[in-house]
Amino acid sequence: MDGESGRRRWVSALEVARDAGVSRSAVSRAFTEGASVAPATRARVMEVARRLGYAPSAMGRGLGAARTGLVGLVVAELTNPFYAALTEAVAVALLARGQAPLLLIAPAAGRTDELLPQLAGWRVDGVIIASATLGSRMARACAAARTPVVLLDRQAGRPPSGVREVSSDNMAAGEAVAALLLARGHRRPAFIAGIEDTATSRAREAGFRSGLADSGVALAGREAGGFTRAGGAAAARRLLRGSARPDAVFCANDEMALGVLDCARGEFGLSVPGELGVIGFDDIAQAALEGYALTTIRQDVSGLAAAAVAALDVGGPVRCLLPCALVERATLRAG
Amino acid sequence: MDGESGRRRWVSALEVARDAGVSRSAVSRAFTEGASVAPATRARVMEVARRLGYAPSAMGRGLGAARTGLVGLVVAELTNPFYAALTEAVAVALLARGQAPLLLIAPAAGRTDELLPQLAGWRVDGVIIASATLGSRMARACAAARTPVVLLDRQAGRPPSGVREVSSDNMAAGEAVAALLLARGHRRPAFIAGIEDTATSRAREAGFRSGLADSGVALAGREAGGFTRAGGAAAARRLLRGSARPDAVFCANDEMALGVLDCARGEFGLSVPGELGVIGFDDIAQAALEGYALTTIRQDVSGLAAAAVAALDVGGPVRCLLPCALVERATLRAG
Repeated sequence: MDGESGRRRWVSALEVARDAGVSRSAVSRAFTEGASVAPATRARVMEVARRLGYAPSAMGRGLGAARTGLVGLVVAELTNPFYAALTEAVAVALLARGQAPLLLIAPAAGRTDELLPQLAGWRVDGVIIASATLGSRMARACAAARTPVVLLDRQAGRPPSGVREVSSDNMAAGEAVAALLLARGHRRPAFIAGIEDTATSRAREAGFRSGLADSGVALAGREAGGFTRAGGAAAARRLLRGSARPDAVFCANDEMALGVLDCARGEFGLSVPGELGVIGFDDIAQAALEGYALTTIRQDVSGLAAAAVAALDVGGPVRCLLPCALVERATLRAG
Repeated sequence: MDGESGRRRWVSALEVARDAGVSRSAVSRAFTEGASVAPATRARVMEVARRLGYAPSAMGRGLGAARTGLVGLVVAELTNPFYAALTEAVAVALLARGQAPLLLIAPAAGRTDELLPQLAGWRVDGVIIASATLGSRMARACAAARTPVVLLDRQAGRPPSGVREVSSDNMAAGEAVAALLLARGHRRPAFIAGIEDTATSRAREAGFRSGLADSGVALAGREAGGFTRAGGAAAARRLLRGSARPDAVFCANDEMALGVLDCARGEFGLSVPGELGVIGFDDIAQAALEGYALTTIRQDVSGLAAAAVAALDVGGPVRCLLPCALVERATLRAG
C-alpha cells in the first residue's frame, strides 16, 4: 500500500481549524505575527498544526502576494568542493529567512540562458548565480521581471543594471600573495590561471602581477589550468621542464595546486617547499589532507553566502567584496 | 537605478498574447502539447515568449493542478564529495522532467523533522532524502499528504509505508571486497565502520564479514571512524599500534580511507600496499589524487540519481539496489 492513488495534498488550514475547534481565520491569525488571537487559541492551533504536519503556504507568506519565497540558485560546478561548501552555506542562509533555493545546475559555463524557462516558470523572487556566467537573455528577463540577480564569486566588471555582485577581494588577495612570496625570498614566481576569461582568475592575477611589479619582480612563467586538477598538473609540466624553472607557483585555485604538487613531486622529483613553493586559493577541505598540506588563501564561505542573500533585498548591497585570509600549511617555506 | 521599487513579476501570458497579436488562450494552447493551434501561430507565440522571457507557470503545468513541480531534496553532508556529486545528478535528473529540487540542508543527522514546515509550506510533490534519516514526524506528514518519500543511499530496513529506498547493493559489495582481499593473499583483514547506526555502513560490514566467514577468516580488527577523514585516521591509529597488526583495511567510505593512508604512512611509516592494503568505498574525486591513488568501490552516482527520481512516480520502484564496481588504483597489491 503506497497510498498514492488519491490526490496528493498537504494538510489544509481548514483541517487544522476543525481539529482545533476554531475558525479558519483563527488559524490564519495564529500564524501571522502581530495578529490578534488569544494566546490559548494560538497554542492550540500550533499544537494541532505540529501534530498534523501543517504549515501555512510559503507562497506569499508574509512576503506580499507577488513573492513565492523561491530563489533560483544556479551552480555550474557542484563537484568542485569550494562550490559545494558555498551552495550549502547559501541554502542554510536562505532557509533561515524563510526562503528556499531552487537548485539549478548550469549545463556548461556560459549557458545559463537555457535555465531561464525554469526560473521564470517557478516565478522565483531572485536568482543567485555561483561559478557561472549570466547570459544576456537571462539578464534581460530578470530585469523585466524586476527580479534581483546576484553574481556570487564572479565579478562581471560592468554588470547590467539590477545585477549585484558578491565576491572575495581577489585583487587584494593576489597582492598579498605577491608580498608573501617576496618576503619568503622567492624571486622567480609563476602564476597558473584558471579559466582564462573568468573575472576571479583575472583579478587574482592582476593583484599578483601588480604586487610583484611594485618590487620590480616580473613573472617567471605563466600558464592556465582551467581550474581543474589535471589542468594544474599539465600547466606545472610546462612550467617545470624548462631550464629557467620558477621557484614558486601561485595557483588561482586549490584543485590546480593539488595537481601541481602531484606533478612536481611525482614527475620531477622536486621537494616542496625546498625546491618549489606552492600556494593555492579557496582552502577547500582537500587542501588540509596530510599528503598535501597546501598553503593557501581562504575565502570566507559563510560570509560570502550571507552577503549574497542580503544582496537580494531592496536596499541591500549592490557590490560586496570580502577579505580573504592566509592559511599556512607546509607547501611554502617559513619566513 | 535598480528597478526594484515596483511590484516584481515575471512576464504574463497576456503580454505574450498582446505582443504576438493572438488571444490569451492561443498562448496557452501553444504551450500545451497536442492542443489545437495553427503551426504559424505556435511559432509566433514561441518567438515572442523567447524574446520576452516568458515561460508558463510550472505550478501545475502538465502535472495536474495539485502538483507544484517542486521536489524537496534533503542533504546532510553536501561537503562530502560523494553527496555533492549525487546532489548534482539528482538536480539534473529532476530538471530533465520539468521538476526542480528545493535544496534543504539537514541541520544534523536525524533532525530532518525540523525541515517539515519548509517542505509542507512549499507543497512539494515529493521528497528525496540523501544521507540523512527520515524523522517520524516527517514520515507521518508525508504519508498524510500522500507525498512520496525516497531514501537515497540509506536503507532503513523496514521503512514506513509509502517510503521508497534507492541505494547501492552494499551487502554484495562488501562480499566482493572480502573475496578480493582473500584472492590477493590477505589473511588479517580489518574493517573501519562509518557512523555506527547507518544502514549503509552496516550492510557493507555484514557483507564483508559474511564473505570472510565463508572462507573461515575472521576480522583481525574493527573500529568506527564516523565517515570522516580525521575519524579514519584515529581508527587506523588504534588498529595499527597493536602487535597483531591487520594486513589490510576495508573502510566504509573513501574519506576515512584517505585518513588511514595519512596515518599509516605518516605516523607508522608503513608502505602501502606492501605492508598494508587499503580499500575504500564511493570513488570520490579525491580518491584519484596521485598522492593517494586509492583502490575503491565505485557507486553508480548517475544510476542512483535516475532511480531516485523514478521512484517518485506512482508505479515506480519501491526498492532499488544498484550494483557497484571495483576501481583498482595503487593501494591494494596486484593479484
